[in-house]
Amino acid sequence: MKVSALVGQRFKEKPADCVIDSHALMIRGGYIKCVGNGIYSEYPPLRRVTAKIENIIRKEMDMINGQEVLFPMVLPADLWEESGRYESVGNELVRFTDRNNSKMVLGMTHEEAAVHMVREYAQSYVKYPFMIYQFQRKFRDEARPRAGMIRVREFTMKDAYSFHTSQEDLHKYYEVCFKAYNRIFQKAGVPEVVTVKSDSGMMGGSVSHEYMLLTPAGEDTIVICDNCDYKSNMEAAENKVVNEGSGKLCEVKCVNTPECKTIEAVCDFLKSDVKSSCKAVVYRKNSDDRFVVAFVRGDYEVNETKLRNLVGEEIHTAEITEEDCLVAGYIGPYGISKEVEVYIDITLKGIDNIVAGANKEGYHYTGLNFERDLDNVKYVDISKIQEGGICPCCGKKSITIKRGIEVGNIFQLGTKYTKSMNMQFTDENGESKYPVMGCYGIGVGRLAASVCEAYHDEYGPIWPISIAPWEVQVCCLRVDDEKTRNVADSLYKELLKAGVETIYDDRDVRAGVMFSDADLIGAPIRAVVSPRNLNEGCIEITTRDKSVKEMVQADKAFEYIKNLKDKLFADIEKHVEEYE
Amino acid sequence: MKVSALVGQRFKEKPADCVIDSHALMIRGGYIKCVGNGIYSEYPPLRRVTAKIENIIRKEMDMINGQEVLFPMVLPADLWEESGRYESVGNELVRFTDRNNSKMVLGMTHEEAAVHMVREYAQSYVKYPFMIYQFQRKFRDEARPRAGMIRVREFTMKDAYSFHTSQEDLHKYYEVCFKAYNRIFQKAGVPEVVTVKSDSGMMGGSVSHEYMLLTPAGEDTIVICDNCDYKSNMEAAENKVVNEGSGKLCEVKCVNTPECKTIEAVCDFLKSDVKSSCKAVVYRKNSDDRFVVAFVRGDYEVNETKLRNLVGEEIHTAEITEEDCLVAGYIGPYGISKEVEVYIDITLKGIDNIVAGANKEGYHYTGLNFERDLDNVKYVDISKIQEGGICPCCGKKSITIKRGIEVGNIFQLGTKYTKSMNMQFTDENGESKYPVMGCYGIGVGRLAASVCEAYHDEYGPIWPISIAPWEVQVCCLRVDDEKTRNVADSLYKELLKAGVETIYDDRDVRAGVMFSDADLIGAPIRAVVSPRNLNEGCIEITTRDKSVKEMVQADKAFEYIKNLKDKLFADIEKHVEEYE
Repeated sequence: MKVSALVGQRFKEKPADCVIDSHALMIRGGYIKCVGNGIYSEYPPLRRVTAKIENIIRKEMDMINGQEVLFPMVLPADLWEESGRYESVGNELVRFTDRNNSKMVLGMTHEEAAVHMVREYAQSYVKYPFMIYQFQRKFRDEARPRAGMIRVREFTMKDAYSFHTSQEDLHKYYEVCFKAYNRIFQKAGVPEVVTVKSDSGMMGGSVSHEYMLLTPAGEDTIVICDNCDYKSNMEAAENKVVNEGSGKLCEVKCVNTPECKTIEAVCDFLKSDVKSSCKAVVYRKNSDDRFVVAFVRGDYEVNETKLRNLVGEEIHTAEITEEDCLVAGYIGPYGISKEVEVYIDITLKGIDNIVAGANKEGYHYTGLNFERDLDNVKYVDISKIQEGGICPCCGKKSITIKRGIEVGNIFQLGTKYTKSMNMQFTDENGESKYPVMGCYGIGVGRLAASVCEAYHDEYGPIWPISIAPWEVQVCCLRVDDEKTRNVADSLYKELLKAGVETIYDDRDVRAGVMFSDADLIGAPIRAVVSPRNLNEGCIEITTRDKSVKEMVQADKAFEYIKNLKDKLFADIEKHVEEYE
Repeated sequence: MKVSALVGQRFKEKPADCVIDSHALMIRGGYIKCVGNGIYSEYPPLRRVTAKIENIIRKEMDMINGQEVLFPMVLPADLWEESGRYESVGNELVRFTDRNNSKMVLGMTHEEAAVHMVREYAQSYVKYPFMIYQFQRKFRDEARPRAGMIRVREFTMKDAYSFHTSQEDLHKYYEVCFKAYNRIFQKAGVPEVVTVKSDSGMMGGSVSHEYMLLTPAGEDTIVICDNCDYKSNMEAAENKVVNEGSGKLCEVKCVNTPECKTIEAVCDFLKSDVKSSCKAVVYRKNSDDRFVVAFVRGDYEVNETKLRNLVGEEIHTAEITEEDCLVAGYIGPYGISKEVEVYIDITLKGIDNIVAGANKEGYHYTGLNFERDLDNVKYVDISKIQEGGICPCCGKKSITIKRGIEVGNIFQLGTKYTKSMNMQFTDENGESKYPVMGCYGIGVGRLAASVCEAYHDEYGPIWPISIAPWEVQVCCLRVDDEKTRNVADSLYKELLKAGVETIYDDRDVRAGVMFSDADLIGAPIRAVVSPRNLNEGCIEITTRDKSVKEMVQADKAFEYIKNLKDKLFADIEKHVEEYE
């Protein structure tokens, strides 16, 4: 491929609407073009990257006995009605009717389609276990698409579904898949992807993990223990807090706290420690609008995912009006209306003499002692863990909080879908049972963008060679010089002939333009052929990550590049775990 | 892969709702599963076939300088409004609104997206020509999906778009692409695909060709000249008819023809030749409901595509009521209401003394002579050519009519999309011009089904080796016999190690089951390992098409199979045209 023929524009100016670097670089480098909100076309360089990622994934899926299939992207609504998700999933599921007025959906994940494919096939235990996977476009009508290819509405996903006769067998396969996923990220050149426990969300099931590429621009918060192996998504991280009591219990007093509507204002006014205060956060249930009040220690935040799981249904943050049974700004657990569902976080356990709202305009209580003053107080875990917090695994105060991008996830789904869709098999004893499912996803385009986010400089992406659009870029400075052109031409041809993926810049442009374009294309190896270098009989060979910068004799350049390519691949392979 | 692990069921009974063989075989063989009307999931064997077809196509597209890209399947409606197709395309275009109430469509072809991708990039003539292509899912809300994977609503398509600075340059590239398409079908093992001229339909543009796989079950009618190279889709085929006049002109008479509402009944009643009669077919314009009447010779049919092109807009067949200006069953060109748009077919030219409706209940004219009796009679070509008709190319009466499945098409689009979407480039002289486009499609799943339709017997598909799900199937009869099992096992392993795509049946099932499953899977080469053959030191090697049936010494079986595989591939390559 010649740069002169490559479809797509490259330019220097950072586009105005790009918040993260990978988004800007992928637009500046001619990788993507925005077609609509969260909808992109892929130009040839990105399509080459995604094709390579797909092949890495495909190989690993086949290695663990996956069988590639293809489900439709447009699905009849009745399939989703069977599983109950037609009703339960929100606006992100696109629903429409076809010309015959049949209800349809755009597949955003394919559990239903997977069960539909195999429920007649797998009626005997002898067919198990098995795993099917596909690469398919998905459409998720995200409320806030953002960050370029990181959070889009339409994307290519590899989704895999495994079926088992028991939880134990699923668990065994889950471990195998866990490893395959590690290998995929290692082969894609991002071995530093970490695995975190996560909340299963709308997928259902219990155990699940997310694969996170750590980068400050990530939209997910990750909890990592510096002492042990513990890693978790913030949403799933258990918060352990131990409060030391003072031993001296005061009496409950109702004090006037005028205009103190935030917990900070109250503590400021009362000159008390925010760590001895109780903050209220108010929600309503989506189903019947009933109030749900979460109480956490003043310096903590509510973890809405954990709260939602406890409540057992969808909730939303609530506005309070004068007609309601709650007094905005002055809500506390002592004497709160019985109409309200109350959750008290474990961060409040063991604190003496708490400050909390008095459920009365302009008043707070001081000297509240929950065990003494509240009936049957029960503490639950509904708060976000903090930097320096206690690791739920090793118990040390060694928690750090980082940002990451989710590049893959694996779920133990249990029998959620097989039960609701009535898929059964007969076991060894002739008994009917529901198979246990696992599912395993990787967003192809998001992985490409995440690698770009994790590996780039201000000039462009620094692609690992295993997924780079091209392995080598040959730059011919001064094509008007016959000798230079001939040397560059023949190096290009030699590389192509040897199967080295090479892009060749033989445009009559300034060196600056040529180099900045090469930086944006991001081939790991660059060979610069110029009259000045050739005067010394040399070609300059560099790597995009600047680790190599050599003047190589012109007649040895081809061999040098080939060896360098092999070395870069070997460097990646070094990080790939072997199967036992 | 072992048959015992292969996901999908195979069975003997022909499904009730299958009209064509490929549909039945693909269901019986565990290739497809119907998810909804015209919507299918692909099981592993079909996914392997389609993946191979995709790779064959990809290689040829790259050979002619195509650059792979990816357009979204969900597109904002405003793109389609730009081209005018949001309004002009019918119900087959799925329109819906997203969560923000923005109008969206499901891409059924991607001309708009292609122009959108390159209209900033290709503003100078130096960027031309170029071609971009993608493999993407499409959804077309067909009114009548049918014939299994032949006419579906959702499908994978390779669509390519080329851009040129002149019609001449497009024409040159069109020829190259024409050849690439031939090579694709040759490599897929169906060199007998023929090319026919076609009508461009909703794509716009002038010149276009369809690639047709001839098979009696095809839904398209193809016109082929036995004498010269002429081939055409029925819709685009010119109909040449020469009527010899008798020389004796009669007078016009209005005769009573009671209850003669069809042309056959009239001719029967009047004892006149149907070849001297004039048949009326009535339509209305979609836009304003105005009547359009097509007159053809009594023994010909109206070619609605040609008529539609002449009318210049959409029409539909019309019911006539008593209030209308037409008398159903008695419509003729002589004295017809002026409110009606009339088209007279060339099959009526030169006939003396025609019988035609008198526009009066129960009456026909006889002795009509159009040149004499009608004002300014103008003949147009709106009839279907017939078997034995005159070839529009060589003029011989050598037309035969065949059936075929359209497996690909290429269009010269002209500037339809670049003009409507305002894509321009500056030419050598600094003038702004609209680029000229070509587009080139192949339905991947349809090609797979068509090959199955063209190559099968009652037991299953006979896949060409280049697209077969597996190249070799090893059948172990009597796995309970240790020696047999060991020989089969090691042959399987040896083949796998050598990169031969092999499926292995080591199930403990009857030979009949094993063979009928192998027939359905359709691997071109089969090796049967059985105690009886091994007693003679042999393995039986056959081909699915029955051309080979050999007892091969067990220790030579591996070599024999490898050579046979190479030979089968070479047989396919023999038919592949070389580029000059």
